Amino acid sequence: MPKKVDHDERRRHIAEAVLRIAGRHGLDRATMRDIAVEAGISLGAVQHYFRSKDELLRHVIDHAGERVAARITAGLGDLDGAFSVRSFLRVMAAQMLPLDARRRAERRVVQAFGARAADAPHLAEPLREGYHWMHGQVTALIGQAQRTGELRPELDAEHESIALLAMIEGLAFDILLGVRDPDQAMASVCYHLDRLAAP
Amino acid sequence: MPKKVDHDERRRHIAEAVLRIAGRHGLDRATMRDIAVEAGISLGAVQHYFRSKDELLRHVIDHAGERVAARITAGLGDLDGAFSVRSFLRVMAAQMLPLDARRRAERRVVQAFGARAADAPHLAEPLREGYHWMHGQVTALIGQAQRTGELRPELDAEHESIALLAMIEGLAFDILLGVRDPDQAMASVCYHLDRLAAP
Repeated sequence: MPKKVDHDERRRHIAEAVLRIAGRHGLDRATMRDIAVEAGISLGAVQHYFRSKDELLRHVIDHAGERVAARITAGLGDLDGAFSVRSFLRVMAAQMLPLDARRRAERRVVQAFGARAADAPHLAEPLREGYHWMHGQVTALIGQAQRTGELRPELDAEHESIALLAMIEGLAFDILLGVRDPDQAMASVCYHLDRLAAP
Repeated sequence: MPKKVDHDERRRHIAEAVLRIAGRHGLDRATMRDIAVEAGISLGAVQHYFRSKDELLRHVIDHAGERVAARITAGLGDLDGAFSVRSFLRVMAAQMLPLDARRRAERRVVQAFGARAADAPHLAEPLREGYHWMHGQVTALIGQAQRTGELRPELDAEHESIALLAMIEGLAFDILLGVRDPDQAMASVCYHLDRLAAP
């Protein structure tokens, strides 16, 4: 009986190889052959799962988004009963910012897609979906925390969500550019969230 | 007598050609020859001023930074006596965000450099210098506005400057990605600045 290949597992394995390459050199010059070598499989096997580099890159964005979401969920488990909307938003920011090699690689993939959004809009579609989902969640959480009295009642939840997600995006850029270190970036996020708290 | 060429003018002319290319297609695939064609001069003339594409791109960042600074100064003139630190910061944000074709092109150049900062750190040096200069200015302005009573005394000027610049950076990314329109982005900046005002 032939060995059954777990196709989802194989696709994840290829996506992880792309993230390792992104972390080391960026993605601009990576070919499908480079990706196959990094994944330790044949070029034909990569092409069996992904017909083009673009299709593969879209999968990498989906995969990276799922990993970030899984880490946020795991981080919430560590909060250990001391849950608040601010602690959730801190965990979220920490998992989205390039605070270590893994998250740097994810962020470089996001940047590479962002840089191509203007000339290849379809490539950026998974990023846009991820953004809108996140923005909806954060807006709802801020509204909820206003009703429970955790956050200031006069805040505009929609603007605060836009501002917070943009701030995280910008701090990620600053860290990769080398003008802000990870600890300072997290300190600024915590400062900002504390400013939203009801007195 | 031979006609005297204004070298600074010629360098600006080439930089403007690069910005037009960046606005249309991004910079990844633009060659020195493409840039010469766009500038309407010979490849040799471009190479006379810039030995490599990297050297040219660094000049483009400097040039774009000077243009943004000049537009901010011009925008302040329009304030017509109604000067406040918040109005300055609004003008600054408006000139940094990709609100029209010109500013989109500038922002795409910044993104292209940011994306290469990890594998070509020297390329990003003008961006880092620009960031540190801007951060120093914004921190000082916020402190000044706290002393005159315009902004809340309890703010941490350093964190607020980091947060505001990151927010503008992130909103610029969001606009280019297509998840936020320019009017909404400016509305969020204005909302955020109003939240800093002393009651």
